[in-house]
Amino acid sequence: MYEATSKEELFTTPKRITGINFFRKDSLPFPNDSIYQWLAEVDDQNTTIYGNFHEFDPNCELIEINVRKCCFFPTETGRNYITVRGFEMAQAACPFVPPTSYQWGMLGVNWSKGWIIENNHLHDAKCSAVSLGKEKTTGDNLHYQTLRKSGYTYQKEAVFAALRIGWSKENIGSHIVRNNLIHDCGQNGIVGHMGCAFSLIEHNHIYNISTKQEFYGHELGGIKFHAPIDTVIRDNNIHNCSTFGIWLDWQAQGTRVTKNLFSKNGNDLKIEVTHGPCSVDNNIFMSEFNLVDAAQGTAYVHNIFTGNVNHYKIKNRSTPYHFPHTTEVMGCEMVYGGDDRFVNNMFMGLDKIDCGFLCNFTETYNEYCLPEEYIGLVKATGFGTDHEECDEVPQPIVVEGNAYSGVAVSHRAEKGHVTVSDLICELKENNGEWVLEINVPEEVTKMNCRPVTTERLGVPRITEEPYENPDGTHIDFTVDLVGNIRNGNVIAGPFVSLKPGKQSIAVWKE
Amino acid sequence: MYEATSKEELFTTPKRITGINFFRKDSLPFPNDSIYQWLAEVDDQNTTIYGNFHEFDPNCELIEINVRKCCFFPTETGRNYITVRGFEMAQAACPFVPPTSYQWGMLGVNWSKGWIIENNHLHDAKCSAVSLGKEKTTGDNLHYQTLRKSGYTYQKEAVFAALRIGWSKENIGSHIVRNNLIHDCGQNGIVGHMGCAFSLIEHNHIYNISTKQEFYGHELGGIKFHAPIDTVIRDNNIHNCSTFGIWLDWQAQGTRVTKNLFSKNGNDLKIEVTHGPCSVDNNIFMSEFNLVDAAQGTAYVHNIFTGNVNHYKIKNRSTPYHFPHTTEVMGCEMVYGGDDRFVNNMFMGLDKIDCGFLCNFTETYNEYCLPEEYIGLVKATGFGTDHEECDEVPQPIVVEGNAYSGVAVSHRAEKGHVTVSDLICELKENNGEWVLEINVPEEVTKMNCRPVTTERLGVPRITEEPYENPDGTHIDFTVDLVGNIRNGNVIAGPFVSLKPGKQSIAVWKE
Amino acid sequence: MYEATSKEELFTTPKRITGINFFRKDSLPFPNDSIYQWLAEVDDQNTTIYGNFHEFDPNCELIEINVRKCCFFPTETGRNYITVRGFEMAQAACPFVPPTSYQWGMLGVNWSKGWIIENNHLHDAKCSAVSLGKEKTTGDNLHYQTLRKSGYTYQKEAVFAALRIGWSKENIGSHIVRNNLIHDCGQNGIVGHMGCAFSLIEHNHIYNISTKQEFYGHELGGIKFHAPIDTVIRDNNIHNCSTFGIWLDWQAQGTRVTKNLFSKNGNDLKIEVTHGPCSVDNNIFMSEFNLVDAAQGTAYVHNIFTGNVNHYKIKNRSTPYHFPHTTEVMGCEMVYGGDDRFVNNMFMGLDKIDCGFLCNFTETYNEYCLPEEYIGLVKATGFGTDHEECDEVPQPIVVEGNAYSGVAVSHRAEKGHVTVSDLICELKENNGEWVLEINVPEEVTKMNCRPVTTERLGVPRITEEPYENPDGTHIDFTVDLVGNIRNGNVIAGPFVSLKPGKQSIAVWKE
Amino acid sequence: MYEATSKEELFTTPKRITGINFFRKDSLPFPNDSIYQWLAEVDDQNTTIYGNFHEFDPNCELIEINVRKCCFFPTETGRNYITVRGFEMAQAACPFVPPTSYQWGMLGVNWSKGWIIENNHLHDAKCSAVSLGKEKTTGDNLHYQTLRKSGYTYQKEAVFAALRIGWSKENIGSHIVRNNLIHDCGQNGIVGHMGCAFSLIEHNHIYNISTKQEFYGHELGGIKFHAPIDTVIRDNNIHNCSTFGIWLDWQAQGTRVTKNLFSKNGNDLKIEVTHGPCSVDNNIFMSEFNLVDAAQGTAYVHNIFTGNVNHYKIKNRSTPYHFPHTTEVMGCEMVYGGDDRFVNNMFMGLDKIDCGFLCNFTETYNEYCLPEEYIGLVKATGFGTDHEECDEVPQPIVVEGNAYSGVAVSHRAEKGHVTVSDLICELKENNGEWVLEINVPEEVTKMNCRPVTTERLGVPRITEEPYENPDGTHIDFTVDLVGNIRNGNVIAGPFVSLKPGKQSIAVWKE
Repeated sequence: MYEATSKEELFTTPKRITGINFFRKDSLPFPNDSIYQWLAEVDDQNTTIYGNFHEFDPNCELIEINVRKCCFFPTETGRNYITVRGFEMAQAACPFVPPTSYQWGMLGVNWSKGWIIENNHLHDAKCSAVSLGKEKTTGDNLHYQTLRKSGYTYQKEAVFAALRIGWSKENIGSHIVRNNLIHDCGQNGIVGHMGCAFSLIEHNHIYNISTKQEFYGHELGGIKFHAPIDTVIRDNNIHNCSTFGIWLDWQAQGTRVTKNLFSKNGNDLKIEVTHGPCSVDNNIFMSEFNLVDAAQGTAYVHNIFTGNVNHYKIKNRSTPYHFPHTTEVMGCEMVYGGDDRFVNNMFMGLDKIDCGFLCNFTETYNEYCLPEEYIGLVKATGFGTDHEECDEVPQPIVVEGNAYSGVAVSHRAEKGHVTVSDLICELKENNGEWVLEINVPEEVTKMNCRPVTTERLGVPRITEEPYENPDGTHIDFTVDLVGNIRNGNVIAGPFVSLKPGKQSIAVWKE
Repeated sequence: MYEATSKEELFTTPKRITGINFFRKDSLPFPNDSIYQWLAEVDDQNTTIYGNFHEFDPNCELIEINVRKCCFFPTETGRNYITVRGFEMAQAACPFVPPTSYQWGMLGVNWSKGWIIENNHLHDAKCSAVSLGKEKTTGDNLHYQTLRKSGYTYQKEAVFAALRIGWSKENIGSHIVRNNLIHDCGQNGIVGHMGCAFSLIEHNHIYNISTKQEFYGHELGGIKFHAPIDTVIRDNNIHNCSTFGIWLDWQAQGTRVTKNLFSKNGNDLKIEVTHGPCSVDNNIFMSEFNLVDAAQGTAYVHNIFTGNVNHYKIKNRSTPYHFPHTTEVMGCEMVYGGDDRFVNNMFMGLDKIDCGFLCNFTETYNEYCLPEEYIGLVKATGFGTDHEECDEVPQPIVVEGNAYSGVAVSHRAEKGHVTVSDLICELKENNGEWVLEINVPEEVTKMNCRPVTTERLGVPRITEEPYENPDGTHIDFTVDLVGNIRNGNVIAGPFVSLKPGKQSIAVWKE
Repeated sequence: MYEATSKEELFTTPKRITGINFFRKDSLPFPNDSIYQWLAEVDDQNTTIYGNFHEFDPNCELIEINVRKCCFFPTETGRNYITVRGFEMAQAACPFVPPTSYQWGMLGVNWSKGWIIENNHLHDAKCSAVSLGKEKTTGDNLHYQTLRKSGYTYQKEAVFAALRIGWSKENIGSHIVRNNLIHDCGQNGIVGHMGCAFSLIEHNHIYNISTKQEFYGHELGGIKFHAPIDTVIRDNNIHNCSTFGIWLDWQAQGTRVTKNLFSKNGNDLKIEVTHGPCSVDNNIFMSEFNLVDAAQGTAYVHNIFTGNVNHYKIKNRSTPYHFPHTTEVMGCEMVYGGDDRFVNNMFMGLDKIDCGFLCNFTETYNEYCLPEEYIGLVKATGFGTDHEECDEVPQPIVVEGNAYSGVAVSHRAEKGHVTVSDLICELKENNGEWVLEINVPEEVTKMNCRPVTTERLGVPRITEEPYENPDGTHIDFTVDLVGNIRNGNVIAGPFVSLKPGKQSIAVWKE
Repeated sequence: MYEATSKEELFTTPKRITGINFFRKDSLPFPNDSIYQWLAEVDDQNTTIYGNFHEFDPNCELIEINVRKCCFFPTETGRNYITVRGFEMAQAACPFVPPTSYQWGMLGVNWSKGWIIENNHLHDAKCSAVSLGKEKTTGDNLHYQTLRKSGYTYQKEAVFAALRIGWSKENIGSHIVRNNLIHDCGQNGIVGHMGCAFSLIEHNHIYNISTKQEFYGHELGGIKFHAPIDTVIRDNNIHNCSTFGIWLDWQAQGTRVTKNLFSKNGNDLKIEVTHGPCSVDNNIFMSEFNLVDAAQGTAYVHNIFTGNVNHYKIKNRSTPYHFPHTTEVMGCEMVYGGDDRFVNNMFMGLDKIDCGFLCNFTETYNEYCLPEEYIGLVKATGFGTDHEECDEVPQPIVVEGNAYSGVAVSHRAEKGHVTVSDLICELKENNGEWVLEINVPEEVTKMNCRPVTTERLGVPRITEEPYENPDGTHIDFTVDLVGNIRNGNVIAGPFVSLKPGKQSIAVWKE
């Protein structure tokens, strides 16, 4: 049931066709359900709950009212090394958890280390199904309570306050969330600020997140992480999330997003106010909007993007970056934009959207120079300008070895790419097996791209940390989405080799 | 002698009337000296030094060539609790030391704790006479060496790197620099980034700093400190410094500037990219330009300002602030401007300058609201705007109990102030005694201002730390510049009481 | 009422004349009360409480049963700067709190900073009236729960775990506990591990602590502190505490115990496994046993000791010491004994006790050498012995300027002392005023002792920190117990001057 | 040439047959060389060097006098990620470097991170060939300079001082020292205190270390490490080191010594004042003395020991242990002895030594109980004893699955072992290939031992950290010394399978 905003709405229950969604005024996915509504009136002594059940008789149907915040959540912090395996959890009334609050979840670790959460069925949480997030003493909705400083400022203060109480690789994080089925939650499938660092999020099936669109807030998504330092998000299937599939916000440093399957989301991936290195490789992005890029220092390698991108800079917020593989802060910086790597991807350009700005992929980044031009441009600003030069000189970008089709357009200075017609694909599901049907022009199969290595990708300008594994070893980009090894002719996209024409590839299985 | 920029200049030695000075194209104070020049040519094997001595015979005169960087400077860091008392030191070839370099000085502490430097005569350092500054491993001119990131960014990284190697109240700083005579140095009388924290700079006589104007750079001044956390600068006499008398840049948190005498400086005080609390009380500012305010969170209390102010915001740099009385970082923020307190000052307005912007003191701050209006303005921005509201809502300002005269104009919303004519003063020196001759209209002597206390000043919006002493006790603002106690009628300015009309007050003595 | 140990005892209620007290099998102070007993039987469902009321009718009398742990205690840590003033609190069922547990108190701060607890009446707590102690995540009775490691080891681990979660001067402690009336509590008047650091405990009246002697445990006393770094305990009146008046255990570094009045305690002061500097000055110790000294590095200056001392080494426990004025650990060391300073004290020797070891004060320390002999003894051990030399060479001791009487005997190598007869005193109380009646031989009034200063006391061998104030300034030992200044002839004891013969001095007032 | 101790010795040069060696008065390995001696006399102005060349003419021979401390050593700390590959370095006059000094080496990293030192030929260093050790500000021979505290105490203080200046996994250590040929050095092949942590020491050939026996000191060995946290020492060939092959002293936590070959050393391995977990597996120890065990918490698994062991407790020194995989201190503890695991080893007992104490391997540990007896013994001490129980209750020991022969004797309570005759072996070298000739009785080949896993080994009592890899994964004990996998019948010793009778196995190759 949906929550009514007034008694009037409760009685009339007009069918909702759009929800509260800051991103776009989309139609609700299940508008017919929206007429079943409830409303609570609270006074000093009583809470009265009304429901409009329409044709159903509430005395016959099963309806649950609950106030429990969590199904499994330790009352104290620091309860380490717990395994939660094989449970079904549902219907917790967990509250909305921005990164500046105490982050409750239906199932949560409460600022601990080394949990294993696997093979669970988690659904119908009011807000977030799994929380790996932050505890209370580092701030609990201070902006809302005091109006003194912005939420953005309190969030940054939370990072430093957390360091004071021992946020470190040795103390907090390092969780494994694996093989869970998560769906129909109001805010997130998995959420976490800081506590999510050094974790592995693997082979979860996450869908129908924030589909009721009852909340406004910058924190909706299948997976929403702040400060997922050295966290690996691998082999998940994320679809039908009304806002974002995955939203990496702040300090996605050393993060890797690999071999995930995205479809039918409001937007597949958002990456925001973070400075790299973040590796996004061998994923399939199939929604209309694939990417919101409000960050710098990301490497996009061997992915399929079928849709659009939205890129913008953020010069009025500075966010922390860290010494490699630690939580120790190394500096704070704004997002100047650029400093990204788009290498060996397929951009299929299946959807044309007219939204008032460039969104047909790497063309969007035309303002950014190539690395070989950068130092010259800096020198040209003169030596006395110091920090102002950061505003003047666009950061460099690497764009190489991509395949373009449909409405997708290459970067003005790109080399080594191909532009073809009819590079298209479609996703089908059958009994838990997800199959990609793809049509491949012959030129793509003969691309002979330069192989990608940690060495080739260099380091982001700000953080100076390589695109490497959490243990400091190089990432092996030779392994493709389905486990084959790239050792001959390297082509764009997440598959070692493709034959010309149509073919079907099984890409995900329950 | 002055350094020539070319052989041609060396031979022709045109008299210089302006130096390299980013602040204004001022005349050099000693132009006739500028024709005596030298030049060095360096190749792989030899350094050849030329000099143009004009009427003097170099074989008869005393001329010194030296390459020693320092007169007294430990080769290793961490040499604590050393007293340097009663020396004369001069003619060291110490290099230029921005906050991002290894900070050499003619006399320096090299990242130590607890030095006492007193009763010394220090003069004719090529750059800085006394350095309390930072060591080498946290960065040594990285911007210049790499062109990778701006000096501003490297400076912020230096702060975090310093925390890693133990920058704390327990380890570093806590120096006393007292009763020294310091003059004729190229860059600074006293300089220091981070290492100056928790120190006392008392009763030094500093003059003729950077008067040759041979260097360009943002680091010139009688005293130039970065991160002088909880440092007290008291009872110094600073004059004839071509750029700034005192320049507090970054993290002047818990800093107090009290009972100092400023005159004939390019600019008396600059305070930049810092968020408070910084207390500036009971000083006499007598140069044409008294103040450059590019900061927030400062309290100006019971001072005399005879000249002008320049105020601006800095929204493209974010600098750290700290947990009270520690070096631990609490956050990073831009300078939104405002959040200052101007209470019980005399603004005499002796000089009218037309520089294209408001500079007649508190009128300059007309855009800022009063504290009682602030929360209403924040609420008016709505709740979804978050960090954007920081740009939209000007921070509040407290302006009360000031006396205005000459061209000085009060804040649009000020209360409890008086505007008079003929509040004027002049400074005279006689045998080491400095006397202020002041004419006081009767209205000023009867002002009945509200007394200033730590409680009344509140806390800056960002840092939330009171205007208090380094040990956390309240500042006693009842003591005036010459040691008398304000316990009856409180009037504006640094003296407990004044009689109507002319009077002379001894304000500084060697 | 007393808790019975069995139903049989409940019914027969033999009068108890000794309690459970590890120190000596003393008679209970109020044996007649001990026949009123209660007993609780707990099974899975019910708790049954029995009481033996003897001649009283429980239906007429007021009797309270409660299970509330606390009267005022925040549920969360880090609730800073709270003032608790003017309350009466009583009858809380707070549990026993060793330093290795979550330290509950009837009134407690729960790991916070900057509380002011003053002018309260606190009594009849089951265990501790005021707790400044540690929180839960650093360990809660782990020895008892696991039997894995000793309580001693878990306590040391708690110190390091606390550092991890931010135990520092900036975060925790700095409380003021002042002017409280505290009595009739089972364990402590004031207790605290780590959380008590940087605090001021002033002018409290504490008595009848652990008089029922129902608990066994090393944690009984009027004040029991672990790690009271830089804490000042001043001007308290502590009497009739069955075990210890004040017990400083572990890390009493920078601690000062001054101007306190001790009487009728099982033992006045115990100082244990700590390495100095701890200053014990201007106190009056009047119980039969004045001091248990199982520590090193303490300075005893200008005190009156009327009774006995017990000194021993502890070579099988190593405890931390800290960088000066911080919680940062500098090392861990055993107690080798000695390294103490006994200067300008009165040892009256009023009680002769035969307990099998030397206890007549400084004679007890005869095995320790003088400082001037020490280096020679170390050299004599040869250079290859390293840590073994610590076992072989007794640490030096300073014993000077003391006055001895009765059974008290001076150190074998002492100089500058006097031994007299009839230096005696008695304490009387009248309407809240406590008066010392003292008889002084003329020799004592003419002693002409060397004044004590921070400089004279030097630094303890291990910690190398001076006997100084928390802010690093020198301690002013010229002020005597009642506020007069020692500026002429300095004599032993806590008074500036005494006349020969009998006199009365008011030493404490409510 | 050898250094003479006096002019008299220089002229007479009696052949030395023993050197200065605290362990035993052994004969020097090359006594005939010892008659070539030199002596230096130093006064204020001159250093005079004498040499006794005997039959050689110094004017014809090559003789080198040098004072350079190092061949390659950065002047500043923090010079990270340098590779030194393929050099020959020799004849540096590097000084003696105990863990309490600035640790110079002929080749050294000077407190840096991430060096790779490989394929070098390093020989004839006066003291240490490779130093990974500590810098200067944490102490430089303070015991020697001050005589104030023992070297042991200063070393512990150095650990805490190092934490203050940023000793952490992120900052310091993580070096690779690989494939180097190191020989004929006075003190160590590889040395390092703290700076050696998180490193890999692999496939080095180290021999003739401290064979001249000119120094006295506790710091001699092929490899001498303090605080080698999470350091792996693998596949090295260490022989003819006059004192120790490998000496792990203090904080060998998370350390692994695996697949090394030891022969003809004064003693193969010493492990001292450390609390585990330390894994010693699949090594071959072939010297007369295999092991000095003055530690607790070590697991000896699948090794060959041909010789003797010396075990003792150290109850007068407490040394730090750390939170797993970090440098953060968790506690400090003495060595109570025991808590070791001897599983699936071969003890051949080839040498009978009469040294006044038990040394025939696990029989040596007869005083220690089995784990299943431990809690009962603790309980039997009562609950009030606390730390004293640590002295009373011997820590448990695990002894299982070993094979004994010769003079080696099993633990009194051992199960699952075999005792055979004629389990013997011999080591032969031929052109850089080292071959083990071993005779195996049939019973050994059929032992059917329980496989060893991280889980089976449990955790040491004090540190509670598993025997695991530096990244927290389980150690794979199935791989044997030569790379084969134990997957059927598991037998004692470092080889997967052996046939009855004589066989030859190549165990090391240049």
